[in-house]
Amino acid sequence: MTERKHNFSAGPCTLPVEVLQQAQQQFVDYQGAGMALIEMSHRGEHFQAVASEASALAMEIFQAPEEFQVLFLQAGATLQFSMIPMNLLHPGEKGAYVNSGAWSQGAIADGALHGEVYTAWDGADHHYTRMPADRELALQDNTRYLHITTNETIGGVRFAEFPQVEMPLIGDMSSDYMSRPIPWSRFDLVYGGAQKNLGPAGLAVVFIRKAVLENSNRNIGKYLRYDIHAAHASMFNTPPVFPIYLFGEVLKWMKKQGGLSAMQRNAEQKSSMLYAAIEQSDGYYTCPVEPACRSHMNVVFRLPNAELEQQFLTQSHAAGMVNLKGHRSVGGCRASIYNAMPLAGVTALTEFMAEFQANNR
Amino acid sequence: MTERKHNFSAGPCTLPVEVLQQAQQQFVDYQGAGMALIEMSHRGEHFQAVASEASALAMEIFQAPEEFQVLFLQAGATLQFSMIPMNLLHPGEKGAYVNSGAWSQGAIADGALHGEVYTAWDGADHHYTRMPADRELALQDNTRYLHITTNETIGGVRFAEFPQVEMPLIGDMSSDYMSRPIPWSRFDLVYGGAQKNLGPAGLAVVFIRKAVLENSNRNIGKYLRYDIHAAHASMFNTPPVFPIYLFGEVLKWMKKQGGLSAMQRNAEQKSSMLYAAIEQSDGYYTCPVEPACRSHMNVVFRLPNAELEQQFLTQSHAAGMVNLKGHRSVGGCRASIYNAMPLAGVTALTEFMAEFQANNR
Repeated sequence: MTERKHNFSAGPCTLPVEVLQQAQQQFVDYQGAGMALIEMSHRGEHFQAVASEASALAMEIFQAPEEFQVLFLQAGATLQFSMIPMNLLHPGEKGAYVNSGAWSQGAIADGALHGEVYTAWDGADHHYTRMPADRELALQDNTRYLHITTNETIGGVRFAEFPQVEMPLIGDMSSDYMSRPIPWSRFDLVYGGAQKNLGPAGLAVVFIRKAVLENSNRNIGKYLRYDIHAAHASMFNTPPVFPIYLFGEVLKWMKKQGGLSAMQRNAEQKSSMLYAAIEQSDGYYTCPVEPACRSHMNVVFRLPNAELEQQFLTQSHAAGMVNLKGHRSVGGCRASIYNAMPLAGVTALTEFMAEFQANNR
Repeated sequence: MTERKHNFSAGPCTLPVEVLQQAQQQFVDYQGAGMALIEMSHRGEHFQAVASEASALAMEIFQAPEEFQVLFLQAGATLQFSMIPMNLLHPGEKGAYVNSGAWSQGAIADGALHGEVYTAWDGADHHYTRMPADRELALQDNTRYLHITTNETIGGVRFAEFPQVEMPLIGDMSSDYMSRPIPWSRFDLVYGGAQKNLGPAGLAVVFIRKAVLENSNRNIGKYLRYDIHAAHASMFNTPPVFPIYLFGEVLKWMKKQGGLSAMQRNAEQKSSMLYAAIEQSDGYYTCPVEPACRSHMNVVFRLPNAELEQQFLTQSHAAGMVNLKGHRSVGGCRASIYNAMPLAGVTALTEFMAEFQANNR
């Protein structure tokens, strides 16, 4: 087998190698069933066990209270941009959004097509280098929810503290799920694609407050309704069988590592190492994000010029560290260090950064 | 390894064992990349190659003309029930639907929430045992499309011939995709979940006429827009990486078997064997569907009474033939014999049927 790369992709991204190896063993003949899990009926006993275990474990390790239900959906966080206003906004109600970068802009644009929405704070005025304080939020009457992107994958900026406002929060946590505790009492809904911190692509994980379901809109197609998915325990239609299985295996791995507090500690440690490497470079590496709002998941940085950035990417790739290129819309470099990125990957990267700087003054 | 079962599930369902074995080998270290495909960025070179190969191969082996584009979506055929009227119906235009059973009813119910729709023929009047002739269709003025479910998975009834009408057809082919040629000139859109004839759960495959995209509705969220998915070659947001990969591998397997004509021949042979076993049982096994409309994919049959049906299911299961139970809404037995079901599975089942009848007069 080829030596394993350190994969800093922003998503889909590195998964725990132990989980991959275990899934490989079981791939053709799942638990001696005489067939693979990926070809099993979603209503059969094997997959029912997989799905209920994944569901119970998600509630447990996310520390979600029983007022919430977890849903396994498809079509990514992107479909949620439409489903949220479709389900939650009734006539006369508005959705407030924080514009903190590319992903919140996606949520706002789609939201506006399916409800009345407005921008409560615009990060464009600050070049998306920070998040708002609560007092900066311009909230209007009849606001049903405040939507936040808790961590912006592209800009590398995050809410260090979740807002505390009058109305419920809705959080897109695609890129920092399971990296810190969620103050559930403030939220009506938390969602995200699994393909960053939680598992493979093809699964969106939604936690919804059960009380919300009682009053959600019914005049939309069935796949678009949270209440339908909730009533059928995410089995109204065929769920993404294999992604749910692998998600469950990743959750088990996280639990074994020590659960949420361990994931949070690891995220703090790994991101601190990288930001320290940037700070100690005497301005060779720079991070545009204000220190208090720097992401623990997506560490963005620039080199002195574009030519050096290109060399940095080429040489780090050759050294076994891949996908360090910043998003095409912003350029520069970005190290995504999700839960499954081992400390060794970050150590290798900081060492490489120091070496590259020494060789390319 | 446990002996492989014959899996007659209606979906997700049996996949070619050669494909599973090959995917297993590559599972942890894909083509020597030092990482698994399931953890790779969808924008990286490996997955880009997988996706474009799958896309080209889909056009080739479905024999789709260049007026069409194939899209890889999520959320199953079920989300298509909403997306079709959302994208295609403009004010004043109506969608006509054939009600041929459970799945078309799903399409009609969701369609009515996102456009003006009507039922052009109602199979309820015939206990869903046949499909309409063209002259039985009550089509109204200003009908944008006629929606048909080409094969009803639960009722085991299919259109032996596709309707020939004035307006374009839209076909839900979830359960008979790649089992017979599609008269493309009559269609504007063909869709289906992959998890029956094409691959694993978590992927919906849509073929759309490119001209339709020029005039499709834009006032809906981006995930819901066909034109957005088409413009981004199904990479507007993170696609279901692993299901697309396995779908591509199944397509390669089909091509090696002889492509569409081989799949059609196999389907005719396997279904003929089962219907012959039913016909030759002197009324012990019965199929409620009119002979001309019997599905080549989902063979439904009854035994003399519910007690015998239960014994049949228990004993066939013990003999290594699983998931022969009919859908819970209709009862009885059902053998789903999709493209990846080997002839040996059908031979084993017909032998078992004869033996069971002899032992349980």
